[in-house]
This record gives sequence, C-alpha cells and structure tokens, in this order.
Amino acid sequence: MNQKYVIGLDYGTLSGRAVLARCNNGEIVATAVKAYSHGVMDQYLPDGYTKLPVNWALEHPQDYLDVLDITIPKLLHDSGIAKEDIIGISIDFTSCTVLPIDKNGVPLCMHPEFIHRPNAYVKLWKHHGAQQEADQINALLESRNEITSPRFGGRISSELLIPKVLEIIRNDYEVYEAADEILEAGDWLTRLLTGSQKRSGSMAGYKAWWLPEEGYPKTDFYAALDTRMENIVEDKLSGDICPVGGKIGVLSEEWGNRLGLMQGMAVGASIIDSHAGAPGSGIRQKGQMMLVVGTSSVMVALSDKPYAKKGVCGALKGGIIPGYYALESGLAAVGDMLGWFVERCVPESYANLAKEENVSVHELLTKLGLRCNAGSSGLLALDWWNGNKTPHVDGDLSGVILGMTLRTKPEEIYRALIESTAYGTRMIIETFEEAGIEIAEIIASGGIAEKNPLFMQIYADVTGKAIKLAASNQTAALGSAIYAAVAAGKEKGGYASLGEAVMAMSGVKDLIYHPIDENKIVYERLYEEYKTLSDYFGPKENGVLKRLYEIKVEQTRY
Amino acid sequence: MNQKYVIGLDYGTLSGRAVLARCNNGEIVATAVKAYSHGVMDQYLPDGYTKLPVNWALEHPQDYLDVLDITIPKLLHDSGIAKEDIIGISIDFTSCTVLPIDKNGVPLCMHPEFIHRPNAYVKLWKHHGAQQEADQINALLESRNEITSPRFGGRISSELLIPKVLEIIRNDYEVYEAADEILEAGDWLTRLLTGSQKRSGSMAGYKAWWLPEEGYPKTDFYAALDTRMENIVEDKLSGDICPVGGKIGVLSEEWGNRLGLMQGMAVGASIIDSHAGAPGSGIRQKGQMMLVVGTSSVMVALSDKPYAKKGVCGALKGGIIPGYYALESGLAAVGDMLGWFVERCVPESYANLAKEENVSVHELLTKLGLRCNAGSSGLLALDWWNGNKTPHVDGDLSGVILGMTLRTKPEEIYRALIESTAYGTRMIIETFEEAGIEIAEIIASGGIAEKNPLFMQIYADVTGKAIKLAASNQTAALGSAIYAAVAAGKEKGGYASLGEAVMAMSGVKDLIYHPIDENKIVYERLYEEYKTLSDYFGPKENGVLKRLYEIKVEQTRY
Repeated sequence: MNQKYVIGLDYGTLSGRAVLARCNNGEIVATAVKAYSHGVMDQYLPDGYTKLPVNWALEHPQDYLDVLDITIPKLLHDSGIAKEDIIGISIDFTSCTVLPIDKNGVPLCMHPEFIHRPNAYVKLWKHHGAQQEADQINALLESRNEITSPRFGGRISSELLIPKVLEIIRNDYEVYEAADEILEAGDWLTRLLTGSQKRSGSMAGYKAWWLPEEGYPKTDFYAALDTRMENIVEDKLSGDICPVGGKIGVLSEEWGNRLGLMQGMAVGASIIDSHAGAPGSGIRQKGQMMLVVGTSSVMVALSDKPYAKKGVCGALKGGIIPGYYALESGLAAVGDMLGWFVERCVPESYANLAKEENVSVHELLTKLGLRCNAGSSGLLALDWWNGNKTPHVDGDLSGVILGMTLRTKPEEIYRALIESTAYGTRMIIETFEEAGIEIAEIIASGGIAEKNPLFMQIYADVTGKAIKLAASNQTAALGSAIYAAVAAGKEKGGYASLGEAVMAMSGVKDLIYHPIDENKIVYERLYEEYKTLSDYFGPKENGVLKRLYEIKVEQTRY
Repeated sequence: MNQKYVIGLDYGTLSGRAVLARCNNGEIVATAVKAYSHGVMDQYLPDGYTKLPVNWALEHPQDYLDVLDITIPKLLHDSGIAKEDIIGISIDFTSCTVLPIDKNGVPLCMHPEFIHRPNAYVKLWKHHGAQQEADQINALLESRNEITSPRFGGRISSELLIPKVLEIIRNDYEVYEAADEILEAGDWLTRLLTGSQKRSGSMAGYKAWWLPEEGYPKTDFYAALDTRMENIVEDKLSGDICPVGGKIGVLSEEWGNRLGLMQGMAVGASIIDSHAGAPGSGIRQKGQMMLVVGTSSVMVALSDKPYAKKGVCGALKGGIIPGYYALESGLAAVGDMLGWFVERCVPESYANLAKEENVSVHELLTKLGLRCNAGSSGLLALDWWNGNKTPHVDGDLSGVILGMTLRTKPEEIYRALIESTAYGTRMIIETFEEAGIEIAEIIASGGIAEKNPLFMQIYADVTGKAIKLAASNQTAALGSAIYAAVAAGKEKGGYASLGEAVMAMSGVKDLIYHPIDENKIVYERLYEEYKTLSDYFGPKENGVLKRLYEIKVEQTRY
C-alpha cells in the first residue's frame, strides 16, 4: 500500500491554513495559506458605511470558502500526491465563532436583505458585544445556584454561544427568526462538505454547555433568559453531537470535484482551533500542559476528574483527548497585545533602527529587551488588553501599566507586556494545579514561542518550570491532520485511537528553556504584586475598569 | 529722560533666555536664547564614562556663564538700545538647583581633581537621588512633631536643598569639605556679577526652610540628621538673605566690561524661575492663580495667611509678591511627559502623517485628540512620570495608565496624559482653596498653554474654571525684568513697588477658555476615579510603586 496522507485545515483569526501530512510520521509535505479578504470587521460592514458598535468583531463566511478553494488544490499541486492516497480531512476553527444560516446552508449575511444587518454576519470568537447578555446569564445562574457547577465554571464569558445568540435576539430578532440553524463556522464547513448536520462535541461542550451525559441545558433555562429563546436547542441548534476524533460523514461528490479530492473520504468532526494544538504538540497524558501562543494564548492540561472554575473550562470528558477531562484556559491577548504595541507605540527611531539592522521591530525589541534585567524597568502590567478570562471572565476589563517614568524605553514596555502575560499564565497554571494535576511538562508552540527567546525565557523564569517546544511549527494544522487520521480509521491507513496517532505523528524539539534562579526570585516578588492588582482591578474590588468601559460606551458616538 | 529698559534673565532646565523690556509698558524689545551645551546630564559625566545612578540629573555651570556671554551682547546688538538706558538686571533660575563652590566662587566641578566626582556638579531641581535622605528627614521631623508646621508642610521633598546636601555628605564627603559655600545657581550668578555673597529670599524660603522671623532651622536639627552637618548654616550657607524685589548689589566693573553693560547698574535678587511667571502674567492679588505649564507645571496663589500641606509651600511671607503669602505647588511632569510620549511612544505612521501635513507630532496629536470626546477612550492615567509632589511628595512614585485595549490609539493616550495632569492640577486647586482662598481667575502661560488648545480646553473642563492666557509669551523672563525694574528703583526709571510694576508691565490676552458643561459632567466622574487611584497608589495604601522602584534600583547594574 502507498503511504497515506491526511489534510488538516486550521482556520485562525485572520487566515486559513491547510497542511498535507504523512500518516506514518506526521511529516508535513505541503502547506498552503489564504488570508481572509475581509479580515476582522470591527469598524464597518463590507458595505463600507454600516458602522459597528464598540467591541464588535465580525467575519465574512465567503472568506472561509475561499480558503478551501485556494489551499487544497495548492496542496495537491505542490506535493504531487495522488488524491487516492489522501484518506481524510479535518478542520479546526476559532470558536465560538458563530453564524446564522438558512435551510440550504447559505449564511444569512449573503442574502441581499441582510447584507446591512450586523447580526447576520459571523460573530468571531473575540466579538465582545454580548457582555450585557453574559452579565444577565451570570446573574440568572447565580440566582439558580448553578454558577459554580463545572458546566458553568463560576462565571460565563461573553464569548460563548448563548450570549452571542441572545445578543442577536435582542438586537435584531428578524435575523434570529430567519435563521434555520445557528452554528459554529467549523460545523458549517463540515455540513457543506458532507451534507450532514452534525456538530462538533468539542465546540458544543466548551462553548455551549453541552455535556455527554446531560446534553444542553433544559428549556426552562433559556426561557428564563428570554421567552423567545425557550426552544433554541430544538429550533436552531439541531444535529447530533460528534465526539472529537469522530467522523461527521464523507466528502460529497460536489465538493470532491470542486476541491480535487476523492468523494467518500472521511471528514472528521471539527475541533476548536486552539485545542488542535494539543495532539499536534504531543499532549496525550496527565502532567503535560499545552501552551499555544498566538494572538491570544491557550493552555490545556489533562485530568482524570472534571474541574471548572472562573475562566477554566474542564467539565467535558473527552473534550480534546478521549478518556480525559481537558482543562482549558488562556489569555485573551498575547500576540495581539504585542502587535498593538509595535503598531501603535513604537517610535520612528526604532523603526529606522530595525530597518538599518534588517530585522523586524519585534526582533529589535526582543534583542534590546534581552539586555534588560528582570525588574530593572520598574514596570508592571496587567495583560487585559482584550479583557480578562481568568480569574474574572470579563471582556470589558482593560489593560493597565504601572511604573512609567520619563526614562522608560519602548523595549522596557515591550518586556513588561510579555511579563504580564507570563504572570497571567502562572495564575492559570496555579488554578490547574488546584484541580490536583501537577504540571510537569509544558510544551509550547505558536509563532511567538518559536521566534522569541525573550518571551520563552521570561515564561520559564516566571512559572519556574522548564518549557519545551513542539517539533512542528504548525501544531494546530498538524493536530487537525491527526484527528483526520483517526476519523479515517486504521483500515484506510490511519489510526484506531488518538493516543496512537499522537505518538506517531508529533513530538518536541531538543531546545528547552530552563528557569534562571536569580530571575525567579525577582519575578516571585513581581508576581505577588500582579496578583494583588489583579484582585484590585477586578470588578468587585475597585471596579474602575468597568466604569471606564461604561463611560467609553456612553461617550462614543456612533 | 530717555525710555529706560531692564534685562530679565530666565534660566530654565535646558536653556537660558534673556529679554530686554521697556520699563513703562513691559514691551519686550529683544530676546536671546542659549541652549546649555551639556544639557541635563542623567547618564554620564562630561568625561563620557563616569556613569550616574538612576534618577540623577546634573548640569554644568559653564553653560550658565555661556548664557550671559552670548545672550546679553545679542540683546544690545539686536535692540540698538544704549547701555546707559539699561537700569537693572535680574535673574530667575530653576530651583533648588545647587552647587558647591570654592572660596573664589569657582565651582568645584571645574577643578581638575573633582571632574570625575558626580557630587561636585550642579544638582538640578529634578535630581532625584536624595529620596533616602528626604525619607530620613521626614522621619526626623515626624519624631519631633514638626512635620506639619507650615515650614515643612507635612512632608518634605527630595528636591530641596538639605536632602541634596546630605546626599553629598553621604556619597562624597570630600566634596562637602572642599566646598566653601553651597548655593543655588541663581545666587552663584548674582555673586559673580556683584561680588556680593547674598542669597535669594525666595530660594532660601521655599527650598531651604528659611523664614524671615526665624531664619534657618537651628543646629540641633542638622546635627540630628548627621553630625557632620551640624554647622552647615555657618559653614556653607553664609550670606544675608535678600527679599524678592530687593537688590543684591551693583554690577562689577569686570562684568560690566565683559557683557557690555554699565558698571554700577542694579542687580536684583534671583528668584525661582517658576515664580517669576507670577508678576510676568499679572498676578498681584488674592483670588488670582498663576499656572505656568512647561516641562513641569507651577501654580501660585496669594493668601493673607500662611498655609502649607503635603506638597504645597506657603509659609513664606513675601515669597513672590511683597505682603502676601504665596502658596506654591505644581506637577512634577507635564511637557516632559508629553515629550516622552512623542519621542518614545508615537509610531512611524504618525510621524509620517505629521510630515505630510507639515505639522509637528504634538500638533497632529492635538488635532486628532480634539476629535475625541471626553471619556471616549476609556483611559485614565496618574501623571506621576517624574514622581508626585502633591499630595504624596515622593519622587520615587511613577506613572500609571489604565484602560488600554487593542484599539487604543496614540491620540487617545496623549489626551489621557493631558487629562491626568488636569486632574492633578484640580487636586492642587482644591488644596489651595482649603486654605481659604477662592480661586476666581486662572492665568496660564508657558509654551503648551499658548500652543495647545486641546490642553487648555481640558484644563477648563476638568477644573470647571475659565482660564485666561498671559499677554506675554515669556512670562518668567518678563517677571525677572519686572523684579529688575523694582531693584533699580523709581528714581532710576524703574518702580517703587512690585504691585505698580506688575500693573504697568504685564496683562492678559483676549482669548478665554470656558468650561463646556457636558465635558465637565464626564470629568467629574473621571476625577473621582483619579482621586481614588491617587490614594491607592500612594505609598501608604498599596505601595506597589515604591516597591517597583526599589526592585528597579536593585536590578539596575551600574
């Protein structure tokens, strides 16, 4: 039998990536990337004049189709692999990234009557327009004494499915009524490819409170939020739930022809993009922690028991790796925040210096930042540029920097921003460890982890743990390919279990970042300060960040 | 009799300015400026390798002499006024800006054996190396129950004379021993010009705790700080104290020849540069407040009674205007902070836009900032980039910004920094008003006040008071000229009193900034937040900024 291959599709915030991976060893033989033409829409709809409220983030579903049409033929062309040797395809997608569609699967925003209606578009994972709705849900759950159950984890986020749907109902009920289904973008794609309206168990579990034993919450819960929402599960969330590693169906003839693939090949259940990095970086047992650092960061650790707490999800058995509860959390902004800094706060003189040295501004700041000692800037930041997930679960919170003087330099602020994300990461690790897991091995991946030694060293110093790097530089796409190999099954040339597939297809690099003792001591002191400020600036102690947000919304004229 | 003229010399942080003003109406007929060649030395001594500790700020006295040698001949040349018609000269100088000299008046730092000794140089007003010494003095004053007396005002600053001298004793006792006198740079210049070792009552009063009735503190006070300092007044601070508007002596033959002026003309007592703006902007009675906005800001209001409180000096009768107690405070950084922001935090794209529009970056940010609504950025800052004077009197405190998101724009931060200084200014106004003065009229001056309408409108909106602009754009230099006219006296063509001189020689512009009601309402809310955070980040509540400073000092390797 020829070598067999699988396709992993990784849909991120700004682009989609496809890889073609060898089943026997995970080697990636071809890669293709397509940026979304519309990007993230946070100011206007594509009509160019319908202005979006503060904190909105939409996308256009046509961009997702373009990824399929452009990347898959390119994989085939570049690799020269025959389509007969490609046995499966699987998708990971940002989540909760959600859209309303009609009964034919066409997104409502593609209907002429809805093109000027913001609620008809894809609400991206980081869309933060539904905080009011999230606040209402939290209040309801508190009144019902359900908030601290593992399912809800102490406080729910505005990024989840029900807040986003409730926002549609409240803002534009016609869109809700016109929707035949409301679903994750990943589920929309597997539905298109297979014709099967099944849903990802990963997304339903982490983003819509579905549990294997209990299903979704009952109708009385939705009715208490809004009577119009009572039957949402039946009306808008239909479809069987397919566990991770499972198969949604097989590729249709239409799509086989369209993409140049074999009709009938396996299409795996889609998975949350950030989770796909876990198998892609070799996570398969307790004690390991995945750390993916991109625009935001995601951390995953495996546990024998369910656990959830404000900002940490871990109620879903088999949510990422069959047999384990996967505890998941992360920071709402990492690369995004550093990108913001480089774009909006780094002076011309540094831009010129970077040009002279023929390096990027990030590389220049990294080099200069490495020359600073821990704590020598006098700076301390709270990394809440995109709200806070753990411990406050509040998208309205915002970033704080302390310690600026007339001598503060850009590389010092850059370093302080990285440090702030390291403190946030340590808080999450400590929360994971409260669940009874000892984190023995951190495996990092993502562009920043690979490119930025300053970043990695600071993370080792702040957490006090050695950090390894995943072997692949495309862990999410590789993870999707691994799921595809499992969906295809052993007889077709794939694998019978996810554990076997991970063992064969992923691993780590030789390079390890070890904590430096003298830095650890300084960071212990700074981390204590960070924790105090995290409490102080949370909604319950001072609350100023929430009030600033309210004033901002009032004073921003549309 | 021909029209008579006076010279006002204004020594700032980075340059010295001289004006030639007509006595009858204050018209400035010639101006000359000389930048200090050494600038502010905050990294290295002029030898290029002796590194200075964090927070030091030194200057070189040769720069002050260069100002005399270059600007005064230029005034004469440009104006064509005959030296016989110039009846007086007076100097304002930054303070407490202090240097040790030998018995011939030569600064110790000009002696070959001291050129590598940082403590032999001029310690600039904003030198912050003496916080430890200031802390010791505060502790002593508290133990003696003297800290709350008007003389000491609740807490003394590291910028004052005795902390700076104590720092010399502790760091380099040989410099202290070698010094024949330690004196303000302004007093050093009047000594050179006249040969008379008298001292400015303004500087002695505000910066060295001298009071007309009581003189300096007694020897037991100094001895309690350091036995080597017991006789400092007799040993190093000799010379009669000359009140404001008074005459130190007359111009020597040597200096008359050197500068091209008449030997024997009046040389006035030097005055603190920031106070000279009071007569220069028309301040002469209770209810008026001077607001000078430069690198830092200074506020002065007149009172019938002595008053002092943390960060507000007001113990000295006739300290600025004879007959009144002048309450003085201000912010440690205003223009400095905005300059830091423009230099270190404004991206290339904005620099390019400014070039395209042929405006400065400040002008661009001002234009963009004017388009934002009050509160619409969600940002709030504490303006402590150069420490805090009121209410904490602590040079180790540092700046804070809250509310950043991934959408925060440079013009929003710029605006938030301006707003933070407006909140700080309002806190000082409220402290002045606690002393029983109602501030009815604010007269602003300084480059920012004249050039930046965004700044002025924010100040009016935050304080809720109308703000006028001084007629002169050189209020400090004009103020010095006014003091010179009084030192010269009525018979020579000057004035018999400062009140008369101010009435004749200064005034305000027609332009008035009035508060905008809808902005006032928003700023009331933000000001409440500012006050809460000012308390929280003060040394006594959270103290994190002090600890960050300590870590910074430990971790900065020299």
